[in-house]
Amino acid sequence: MSNRFAKPEVQAVGAYHLRPHVTPIRLHMNENAAGFPDDLKAEVWRRVSQRDWARYPDFYLREITQRLADHAGVPYEWVMVGNGSNEILQMTLLTTVGRGDHVVVPLPTFTLYKLQATVMGATVHTPLMQPTTNFALPIDEMVWLAREYRAKAVVICTPNNPTGTAYSEAEIRQVVENVDGLVMVDEAYREFHDQDLIHLAREYDNVILFRTFSKALAMAGVRVGYCVARPELVQEIMKVRLPYALNILSETTTLVALDHPDYFRETIQTACCERDRLLAALVALPGVHPYPSAANFILAHFEVGSPTVFQHLLADGILIRDVSSYPGLKDHLRISVGLPPENDAVLASLTRLLVK
Amino acid sequence: MSNRFAKPEVQAVGAYHLRPHVTPIRLHMNENAAGFPDDLKAEVWRRVSQRDWARYPDFYLREITQRLADHAGVPYEWVMVGNGSNEILQMTLLTTVGRGDHVVVPLPTFTLYKLQATVMGATVHTPLMQPTTNFALPIDEMVWLAREYRAKAVVICTPNNPTGTAYSEAEIRQVVENVDGLVMVDEAYREFHDQDLIHLAREYDNVILFRTFSKALAMAGVRVGYCVARPELVQEIMKVRLPYALNILSETTTLVALDHPDYFRETIQTACCERDRLLAALVALPGVHPYPSAANFILAHFEVGSPTVFQHLLADGILIRDVSSYPGLKDHLRISVGLPPENDAVLASLTRLLVK
Repeated sequence: MSNRFAKPEVQAVGAYHLRPHVTPIRLHMNENAAGFPDDLKAEVWRRVSQRDWARYPDFYLREITQRLADHAGVPYEWVMVGNGSNEILQMTLLTTVGRGDHVVVPLPTFTLYKLQATVMGATVHTPLMQPTTNFALPIDEMVWLAREYRAKAVVICTPNNPTGTAYSEAEIRQVVENVDGLVMVDEAYREFHDQDLIHLAREYDNVILFRTFSKALAMAGVRVGYCVARPELVQEIMKVRLPYALNILSETTTLVALDHPDYFRETIQTACCERDRLLAALVALPGVHPYPSAANFILAHFEVGSPTVFQHLLADGILIRDVSSYPGLKDHLRISVGLPPENDAVLASLTRLLVK
Repeated sequence: MSNRFAKPEVQAVGAYHLRPHVTPIRLHMNENAAGFPDDLKAEVWRRVSQRDWARYPDFYLREITQRLADHAGVPYEWVMVGNGSNEILQMTLLTTVGRGDHVVVPLPTFTLYKLQATVMGATVHTPLMQPTTNFALPIDEMVWLAREYRAKAVVICTPNNPTGTAYSEAEIRQVVENVDGLVMVDEAYREFHDQDLIHLAREYDNVILFRTFSKALAMAGVRVGYCVARPELVQEIMKVRLPYALNILSETTTLVALDHPDYFRETIQTACCERDRLLAALVALPGVHPYPSAANFILAHFEVGSPTVFQHLLADGILIRDVSSYPGLKDHLRISVGLPPENDAVLASLTRLLVK
């Protein structure tokens, strides 16, 4: 049921839903399974409890912006921090795309890019990435569409969710150099892959990078992300984005996390080892076809059908992500990398189902 | 300097800036000067420290939405909570207004309504409220503009920032009944004025109310707001608004605040008493013309000129809000109601300047 006050563009889209299953093992959100450590929480509290919560945060979020700029290796004016990287991505679309404009989003990828571009009133062109090529970036088609429709924006997620595919710098560069619009690169899973695209943002004025503290940095409940782009673009996004996007907990927790890189480096290493172990074990199971992953999750095709596998794991108390309705992903499921015992539980459950 | 990737609508608007003065007395943000109490902070910590910060918050924010619905006296489906009421207002505009649409915003009022409607691509019509009528709502002109241009939205702030004017239910009803578009009512200062507009939202399908925890409820640093409207409209806004708008501190602090209404009731009463005392004292000063206020701030005209007064107070360590560039508000300043000694300091400083 739609509502007459909503724009036609909004009435036309479906809502983004998540069914609220409650299970002991939660491998559906690509979170950091090791958690945010208690001693860092205590440090956050020492700082937060001394602040006056009734006062607005710093209008320009100067301290955290400077720290993130140092962290990324760019000047202060190149960074904008926000309430999760999706908020900044939404604000970037709102800054650059209006009714009647065009956007290119290769699929399958994270649902929100197409949804949000549609909400802005854009026509979204969606070249397909194919399982048969391990979801290689369809560069020629992306460039052709972007030029043909004078696309205001092209969205690339690398490593890509939910496929796990990392695109090479050369591939992304081919898109960036051959389109006129803004190339929005979501690096949500960058920490799990040894690649730094920051120099693309330095080199090209049509690149913006989005980064998050929700995945590798164990802060999904805290909501922090940032973008890196040319100052002229960042200034325009800041006009659109509301002030006070970040609350005092988010700000402080980010500062504390940046002060303690070792803890996160260790959990990231563990997640990468576990990912590779999980992948090797999945390959060995009959009727399971996982794809290589540069992130903290694995996409796999299941010959017995995704509903059977999803329900079987759920019955064993394990929640994973059903992505089988994504274009080209029939009978595919996405499994986040958990702690070693959680991954063991996944493998044991799948073995019971698939090995006769 | 603008940027070619920004939409023309965004390139055309100026940024919303705040000069970062640091002063011991801060009466420029309409915050709750009494602060968020330490024992409630401790209760927040007991709950927040036990949560896993690496996990996303509840997708549907069910607990807090239910509590806010109970608080407002409406069913669950009528409420959406967000990262401050401005975020929800922005998302409501994004849901309802696109390039080529029209919006009506009577001025002077809070800057963001016009800015955000412009960013959406709308033409914004701005009938003027006059100091000579104590900024009465220009109902006939609003209705005429809304009908003439088939406006998608009309924005009303009551009590209005920065004038302090509260509009009667009958006045708002006249607008609501005579326009086809959505009437967005920002009730940010509602707790300082004895009026509940909730039945307007119940009665009319073209009313949405915005409420915040940043002012009376002493949580500006925590970022929480919500809206109340018909479920059909709330559902459309939820399609547009990103999930996980609220972090775990915001959610928990709101629940704790709702558990302790007495503390806030008391600080609101004090703020109202102090407002009336400050108003009476300002009236008695030569060349100062304050307006009646139903909020926790006072707007006044200063015959010696607003720059003189602003700088004089600043030199005395008191920061207030310069609103003299708002339409019709030449030489006007807005003073937030502070703690009794802070208000005494304002009056003493003004007396030194104005009483010879």
